Amino acid sequence: MTRPNELDLIGWIRGLFPQDAKGLALGIGDDCAAIRPSPGHETLLTTDTLVEGTHFRLDMTTPRLLGGKAASVNMSDIAAMGGMPRYMLLSVNVSGGIGKRWLVSFLEGFKDAISPFAAALVGGNVAASQELSFTVTVIGEVARGRRVDRNGAKPGDLIFVTGSPGDAALGLEISLKGEKRLEKYERKLVSRFLSPTVRVEWGMLLASEKIPSAMIDVSDGVALDLQRIAQASGVRARLELSGFPLSDEAKTAFGRIGASAWRKALSGGEDYELLFTLPKGRERRLRRLIAEGKIDATLIGHIVEGAPDVDIIDADGEPLRLRRKGWIHR
Amino acid sequence: MTRPNELDLIGWIRGLFPQDAKGLALGIGDDCAAIRPSPGHETLLTTDTLVEGTHFRLDMTTPRLLGGKAASVNMSDIAAMGGMPRYMLLSVNVSGGIGKRWLVSFLEGFKDAISPFAAALVGGNVAASQELSFTVTVIGEVARGRRVDRNGAKPGDLIFVTGSPGDAALGLEISLKGEKRLEKYERKLVSRFLSPTVRVEWGMLLASEKIPSAMIDVSDGVALDLQRIAQASGVRARLELSGFPLSDEAKTAFGRIGASAWRKALSGGEDYELLFTLPKGRERRLRRLIAEGKIDATLIGHIVEGAPDVDIIDADGEPLRLRRKGWIHR
Repeated sequence: MTRPNELDLIGWIRGLFPQDAKGLALGIGDDCAAIRPSPGHETLLTTDTLVEGTHFRLDMTTPRLLGGKAASVNMSDIAAMGGMPRYMLLSVNVSGGIGKRWLVSFLEGFKDAISPFAAALVGGNVAASQELSFTVTVIGEVARGRRVDRNGAKPGDLIFVTGSPGDAALGLEISLKGEKRLEKYERKLVSRFLSPTVRVEWGMLLASEKIPSAMIDVSDGVALDLQRIAQASGVRARLELSGFPLSDEAKTAFGRIGASAWRKALSGGEDYELLFTLPKGRERRLRRLIAEGKIDATLIGHIVEGAPDVDIIDADGEPLRLRRKGWIHR
Repeated sequence: MTRPNELDLIGWIRGLFPQDAKGLALGIGDDCAAIRPSPGHETLLTTDTLVEGTHFRLDMTTPRLLGGKAASVNMSDIAAMGGMPRYMLLSVNVSGGIGKRWLVSFLEGFKDAISPFAAALVGGNVAASQELSFTVTVIGEVARGRRVDRNGAKPGDLIFVTGSPGDAALGLEISLKGEKRLEKYERKLVSRFLSPTVRVEWGMLLASEKIPSAMIDVSDGVALDLQRIAQASGVRARLELSGFPLSDEAKTAFGRIGASAWRKALSGGEDYELLFTLPKGRERRLRRLIAEGKIDATLIGHIVEGAPDVDIIDADGEPLRLRRKGWIHR
């Protein structure tokens, strides 16, 4: 198998990714890409790495799905600030068994994921390596005064989450079993793990409507990511499970929704839903957006005063303890 | 040895790298960093990865030198456009044998390298890995109308290079021998390889004086990087060795400056000098800057019409052929 060299990859990428994005002054092929920042906007920067064995297994996904996920999990950080992903850099450490066909499929998946947002791949790197890994950097933009940080939650605020967190953790569990024939609900959960939907439109809608006081994307489980908001904001979060939006598929998978089910749903990572707080006075505006079908979000708790931490209250009003709050990649 | 986890590293980085840079609206610790682009400027983006075994060997350098080099080789791409490095993202794939002390030394070297340019580390990532690698992304800025690309060389232009290319290739060769006791000239060459000087001030000076028609940094050897200018510009380059600025240390190392010495000097990578072209009419301005000690640069050839390629002419006026023009990392 030929090892794709740097020049080859640049050629394929130029073929797949037209370098004609609005604001792009100079694309792939020079020492740097050059962009013209949008007037009245801040530039957002985020980067993340997926390592084979740590973050993905080649026998559990396809190159195309993996390419999409590499782009999506990074764009999710832009969504969590209320921003729009605009430009992407992709660095690949290519290990021995990876050939051109695999990489082109990966790039096609990457393109599938960024195309809906008019985001453009404008640079990157390929290096020979013993181990396959991908580092994606996203450059986003957000209008000044609209950016939503983690640290703005105040006592009295409501806590909402989009979609149905917990699905991805169940999807991972199903994938790990490696069974060939899956029920329909299992396929749905696996898809939520392998091919997460990135909530860019919802993040931008919330930011443009000035609804959230704090926001984060759920990459490491609702419990840990809520704790991050609590710590950054210096407040305590009360997570109430009575109205928590488990999906029908998750309910089917869990069977009985007891403590161990909640532990999985709240500590499992990779949902990439948006978790946000808002002052009570903005709830009506949010409820209207939900009623109009513009966003899917559910009330899951309240911010209170107290030492920064998360209290979890189950449907019977009893406290629930997690051994660990979420997933930290090591 | 404890494996440093993501939270730890963020803590150390915050301690080492104050998040108070001009233009930085939100630093390390949220989903994204947020920056306010300078009015009237373009934003430059570049990223590069150093992989253990492919790009560096732990027994040939120190973590501090490696941290400096990881920052410098990336800032060099910004210098090659005439820009100023402003913000850095650092992603580390941490392998087993690497502990906190090693990483802190690496970060200190990184800081040493970026501090002269008021560049700030504003984000990054750490991932557990089987293999040590570093991906650095630099976000730079250049005033509109001052950016220098690779594609502007025209027939009749002069070709200049800064400093003394070839030193780094010799330094690598000396390092590979692994001898404990080195002569002074050898130490100098090794230092040019392990701790390259990044030519940011010179790049900015050239750009602000509107001198270069095309520019690139010498990462893969003068021959290959000059070919890149030739190809991007659609011109032919004539590289004349009679005045080529070999350092005294390089001359000592080579002994006789024959074809094999030239092959090493021109094909060896990692010099990170600036290679640029300029119209004859701007030569006087450049010569004045050189005479004033503001930049060190030497005339090494001319741009002519013809199929895009590089012709190398030795001191006797004879053509010199390289088996390969330079170094492509595979």
